[in-house]
Amino acid sequence: MSYARQLLDTYPRTYRVDEDMLAGVIDALTDCAQACTADVSADLSEPGLAEMVLCIRLCLDCADICATSAAVISRQAPYDPGVVRPLLEACAASCRSCGDECEQHAAHHAHCRVCAEACRRCERACWDLLGALA
Amino acid sequence: MSYARQLLDTYPRTYRVDEDMLAGVIDALTDCAQACTADVSADLSEPGLAEMVLCIRLCLDCADICATSAAVISRQAPYDPGVVRPLLEACAASCRSCGDECEQHAAHHAHCRVCAEACRRCERACWDLLGALA
Amino acid sequence: MSYARQLLDTYPRTYRVDEDMLAGVIDALTDCAQACTADVSADLSEPGLAEMVLCIRLCLDCADICATSAAVISRQAPYDPGVVRPLLEACAASCRSCGDECEQHAAHHAHCRVCAEACRRCERACWDLLGALA
Amino acid sequence: MSYARQLLDTYPRTYRVDEDMLAGVIDALTDCAQACTADVSADLSEPGLAEMVLCIRLCLDCADICATSAAVISRQAPYDPGVVRPLLEACAASCRSCGDECEQHAAHHAHCRVCAEACRRCERACWDLLGALA
Repeated sequence: MSYARQLLDTYPRTYRVDEDMLAGVIDALTDCAQACTADVSADLSEPGLAEMVLCIRLCLDCADICATSAAVISRQAPYDPGVVRPLLEACAASCRSCGDECEQHAAHHAHCRVCAEACRRCERACWDLLGALA
Repeated sequence: MSYARQLLDTYPRTYRVDEDMLAGVIDALTDCAQACTADVSADLSEPGLAEMVLCIRLCLDCADICATSAAVISRQAPYDPGVVRPLLEACAASCRSCGDECEQHAAHHAHCRVCAEACRRCERACWDLLGALA
Repeated sequence: MSYARQLLDTYPRTYRVDEDMLAGVIDALTDCAQACTADVSADLSEPGLAEMVLCIRLCLDCADICATSAAVISRQAPYDPGVVRPLLEACAASCRSCGDECEQHAAHHAHCRVCAEACRRCERACWDLLGALA
Repeated sequence: MSYARQLLDTYPRTYRVDEDMLAGVIDALTDCAQACTADVSADLSEPGLAEMVLCIRLCLDCADICATSAAVISRQAPYDPGVVRPLLEACAASCRSCGDECEQHAAHHAHCRVCAEACRRCERACWDLLGALA
């Protein structure tokens, strides 16, 4: 069981959603941030670097947005749809763009295949949470 | 002249907005993140700590969202309204909530007065950029 | 298999250490950052808040230092002992202080028990990597 | 007057150093993180990208280490030399490497010249604080 899941049981939550789902979203966000950070470094090691520039840029943004979203959702400040909804929408859109770009390179670069998978899973997790919070 | 402003002249930009405004937004975001981080610590030093809990929570979220927004806007990945617009909306909403709460304590705590000012300036900067990007 | 572990196989590494160990350190750092962030929020929900202030401060610092250490180690810039060694030493020391403080509260607060465990595991991982890099 | 400086007057500090110096260090760290983040993006726009890879890697690490150092120093948890000293040493070493590499490109790339300057200033600030904390 992830630390995110273990900890969610130990303090009052302000989002009225299932805690297994919430922990799954936090884990997907943290994993995606980690995958994007590693993928940037892997992209920088490729001989055909010029073709990886867009992927690097999108991974850098996606890593930051996922990490911040994970922190905000873990913290459980009083639920404010004006903050949380657009943040999750930005996160889903960033995962979408980054996942699409990584997929272009997936056949040639294993790191992009793994990162695309992390982005897809995280995008779904953001939309699931947005649906549940509605 | 801030580093943000100096650097914006040195590389291609993908947002079609005035560079003085863009640098001003980056500086406002960075300043607000810094003010919120310091305000958390100041709040934790107050004797009437129980009254400061909401302020601490909102400052923690605001600091993260501002820092990520500053990074995304500095990086200038190809402009994607699906990412940048909701991110700036989340940031403006977070600055609004945090600024409102800090203002409640401004008469008694100088740190909250300073932080409220940073939040107000940053909220305006986000809306200005959202308007210019429209 | 964690994304950190999957990705380490896909790009050149500059640290001459076993990749299972390296992935384990990255996962321990990421988990500890997540646990500390959640523990701050849980601490802020406790009735005896005044007793939790030190725990909150140490968790905030530990979360940041662990997240940065995870990013630096994932990126694998050319190994520079002048940067990586003191960073891991700072991280181990931060995990130690935070873990010690969390342990003081572990009997009463499940969140501190979980966080202490994450800090202990992360501290060991930092020392293991420091030993292997020697 | 920077927000860092304004806020330092408003809460108890645990580092026994001059507050103007402390605020100057926080500002130098925040500025350097910002300059490094922007320099990564500028490097990625250069035609001779292959020559900029090391610069990008060093800037990414330097940005993270500076941002975390700024947060830790702003927060003023009880001063723990086991955490703060190696963190500042890692930060100074990172600024040194990043500044050296940026300087190699300063004649051709204005963004690297600006970033080198930010790194030099930040490296000095870290050593000054380490001296004052001794």
